[in-house]
Amino acid sequence: MAPPSHCHTINGGAPRNGAIAVETPATLLLDADEFRRLGHQVVDFIADYYAGLGDYPVHPSVTPGFLRCQLPTDAPSRPEPEAFAAALRDVRDLILPGMTHWQSPRHFTHFPASSSTVGALGEALAAGINVVPFTWAASPAATELEMVVVDWLGRALNFPESLLFAGGGGGTILGTSCEAILCALVAARDRKLAEIGGRRIGDLVVYCSDQTHFAFRKAARIAGILRDHCREIPTYRDDMFALSPTALQAAMQADVDAGLVPLFLCATVGTTQTTAVDPVRELCAVAARHGGVWVHVDAAYAGSALVCPEFRDVIAGAEAVDSLSMNAHKWLLANNDCCAMWVRSSSALVAALGTEQEYILKDSAAEGHDVVDYKDWGTTLTRRFRALKVWLVLRCYGVEGLREHVRSHVRMAAAFEAMVRGDARFEVVAPRRFALVCFRLRSPERLGGEKAANELNRKLLEEVNAASSGPYMSSAMVGSVYMLRCAIGSTLTEERHVREAWNVVQVQATSILCKRG
Amino acid sequence: MAPPSHCHTINGGAPRNGAIAVETPATLLLDADEFRRLGHQVVDFIADYYAGLGDYPVHPSVTPGFLRCQLPTDAPSRPEPEAFAAALRDVRDLILPGMTHWQSPRHFTHFPASSSTVGALGEALAAGINVVPFTWAASPAATELEMVVVDWLGRALNFPESLLFAGGGGGTILGTSCEAILCALVAARDRKLAEIGGRRIGDLVVYCSDQTHFAFRKAARIAGILRDHCREIPTYRDDMFALSPTALQAAMQADVDAGLVPLFLCATVGTTQTTAVDPVRELCAVAARHGGVWVHVDAAYAGSALVCPEFRDVIAGAEAVDSLSMNAHKWLLANNDCCAMWVRSSSALVAALGTEQEYILKDSAAEGHDVVDYKDWGTTLTRRFRALKVWLVLRCYGVEGLREHVRSHVRMAAAFEAMVRGDARFEVVAPRRFALVCFRLRSPERLGGEKAANELNRKLLEEVNAASSGPYMSSAMVGSVYMLRCAIGSTLTEERHVREAWNVVQVQATSILCKRG
Repeated sequence: MAPPSHCHTINGGAPRNGAIAVETPATLLLDADEFRRLGHQVVDFIADYYAGLGDYPVHPSVTPGFLRCQLPTDAPSRPEPEAFAAALRDVRDLILPGMTHWQSPRHFTHFPASSSTVGALGEALAAGINVVPFTWAASPAATELEMVVVDWLGRALNFPESLLFAGGGGGTILGTSCEAILCALVAARDRKLAEIGGRRIGDLVVYCSDQTHFAFRKAARIAGILRDHCREIPTYRDDMFALSPTALQAAMQADVDAGLVPLFLCATVGTTQTTAVDPVRELCAVAARHGGVWVHVDAAYAGSALVCPEFRDVIAGAEAVDSLSMNAHKWLLANNDCCAMWVRSSSALVAALGTEQEYILKDSAAEGHDVVDYKDWGTTLTRRFRALKVWLVLRCYGVEGLREHVRSHVRMAAAFEAMVRGDARFEVVAPRRFALVCFRLRSPERLGGEKAANELNRKLLEEVNAASSGPYMSSAMVGSVYMLRCAIGSTLTEERHVREAWNVVQVQATSILCKRG
Repeated sequence: MAPPSHCHTINGGAPRNGAIAVETPATLLLDADEFRRLGHQVVDFIADYYAGLGDYPVHPSVTPGFLRCQLPTDAPSRPEPEAFAAALRDVRDLILPGMTHWQSPRHFTHFPASSSTVGALGEALAAGINVVPFTWAASPAATELEMVVVDWLGRALNFPESLLFAGGGGGTILGTSCEAILCALVAARDRKLAEIGGRRIGDLVVYCSDQTHFAFRKAARIAGILRDHCREIPTYRDDMFALSPTALQAAMQADVDAGLVPLFLCATVGTTQTTAVDPVRELCAVAARHGGVWVHVDAAYAGSALVCPEFRDVIAGAEAVDSLSMNAHKWLLANNDCCAMWVRSSSALVAALGTEQEYILKDSAAEGHDVVDYKDWGTTLTRRFRALKVWLVLRCYGVEGLREHVRSHVRMAAAFEAMVRGDARFEVVAPRRFALVCFRLRSPERLGGEKAANELNRKLLEEVNAASSGPYMSSAMVGSVYMLRCAIGSTLTEERHVREAWNVVQVQATSILCKRG
């Protein structure tokens, strides 16, 4: 993967290892005045970026190697004069033109990377303060703010009191849903193995649907669950792609009959492909019948919507879950990364992930108190002060502000859905619940069968995404049906962007259907 | 863990769920002018913090609950007027006084959280750009910059070419060493299980020394290695606490004889307790004798020192390792979090951690190219654009600047060591190699035996850390010997802080020895 040798390199030359040592007084590396000078440049740089974001193509027209080609093979030995300003120019001229702009108002791909002024500045502030709150003593205020914030957030999302610190449970802020699911799974695994013996790890079975995000299978692999012990239960369009409690019961019973041990269910509220909602209450009831199977709810995307009372039915029955996670970086204005996880009982987490070492400094002030050491709640010891940005977002936008934010995207998605339904050539393939619309050119029989219809829709997505000034969407393949996904949720998206996106889809569809004759 | 009900809450009241919806136009949430206005406030806030950092007590005098007590139990329904400025005031008045200030020049605890103007602003810039570079297509420039930066960094640290992209290996930038070790371990595990069958996971054994960081045991637990299959091989003061290849060979052979399968060795270059260095070349030779045991080198702390040629002997023989990781957030001016990991062959990583899903958008430009999708190199799908700050740090300080940075701390540690050696009451317990000094009040026989000596030194650390304007140190317990750790590495630390720290130690020692009579 070396850059081609003919590549022309710019901005920096070969390292000058023979050069005399640079004198860089420590104070200059973290000097208040220098920080102020460069910091204001960065703020203006980002502000200018936001001001021009609507003008960038959402994704770049580049081929692999385009950037590596343009950069030297070695770090500079000594900085060039005014290196920071020069680097910012390179960010503008070399790097930004090669980015996919997740904050673009025309970014409708995957799920959005939710962002806000306060979210971005919360990250900046945390980076400036630069603490490592892995124990209470290692930064008491950071740990306590995290405890406060997960309760604030859990209450704002109407989660059961049993998942909050105030109700005997508790939460933490991790980076991603992958981490959250892995933590819950390892806690469940070790609790079960303590009961049946560690050598029976090969007997453990985990459950999800064929719609569950790959994050769960990744977590199961990492945790050492045999690959063929991950049951992906099929879902159907008639059930709106939700996991069927009856099918789950049958799968668990079959495993029990085969001498295996049901361990863990990952239910999803708002799947990635179509925002399907698994019936939490009924699934928990099935899990309870099989020796306390741990139930985790992955609400990575739709968790944010629960800030609005009108969506809360989707999580009915959550009192019975063992753990739950959602990504505030997906739709709740907290910049990447920010996954909040709650558990009903932290003891299983701490038993599986806890550490106790002399070199981890304790604080005599904590003696006799039941303090939370967050290193024991996650997969890592080092961690960032993510609570700060979440606290700032809640504080500065307020719960009502977040509601309005979510509702504005839901309204736009409803408008997009109405436009799809208004064009007889199209169909909405999966019910729209939140702010994702799954649609396709309809009538496979007319288009030459399901397979040909899929190819045609694949072509349509390619053409929609090809226009550099157009929208950027992604796809799903559910029950052998290929569909386009228009996920509305970028903070800057306005109704006009949605109308324009639909217009591009229509124009490209006309062109494709025309060529087909 | 609910806050006591008598707690007085400030800054916000109960949520007003009945309030009318706030109109927050999307543009205001990410408006360029608003970002500029608030962003400049944040920059000034951080600059002021840096200017006053030397005046803060390194760690606060607070008891658990102090902050939770002062915050409302619910997020505000609607923001107060000028909420952001009010929140910044609370950060200053409520949160910062409750922090442990890792960037204080008197922070000598654990290992430092290395920071710099450019590191902090690199984080801020990445947060502002807010992309999710989980595949090449999801942000081509972010992936390519990461590939360039790990090669830059690997070369600056003189790592073998075989670990760089340019030499057929490659690297990635994760958050923490815990993640890096877990990735390597899971890759090794799945490679081995593919050979011997997945059900033999209970036969796998992993190796480290009794000095290896708990991160490794945590990773082994998460990966499903049986807890009693983690061999912590004892080390001795005569070997400078390094892992003995002879002892490793004996342990592996004993496991093979017992029908078990040696899987993985985690060697350390620069242990947490005493910065001991395991002999990489000799350990790799032992590992090679046992069917390709995967060797990972954890150079979390000392990896940064390899930027200086005079330290490079510690990693001799690294051509034979399978993977290696170091934390640029520990001593290389990259703010938390920033762990770089390199592997000789990425195929085992991708086989273990790779994902393939329809909803992950590909880019036709990448077809036919062997692109790196970093989601397949780590435990998570969502990830941050950490490469940006590392690139900025290398670019703006240069390799020579980083050398001078490391050397300045090594010089200060040598000075501290000389002061310890100059006071007959003390001894340096473990050889100082980098910028950590391990010391204690000497002569256990005079102090009433080893146990009493340990208690006395524990008391000494307590007293040293008790002075609010004094230094903040931590401890280690190695071979039943309790010692104080003075880890020099905070960017703002100057010689005077080190002299003052030693002065506090001397004064407290005099007081303790005096009371003892």
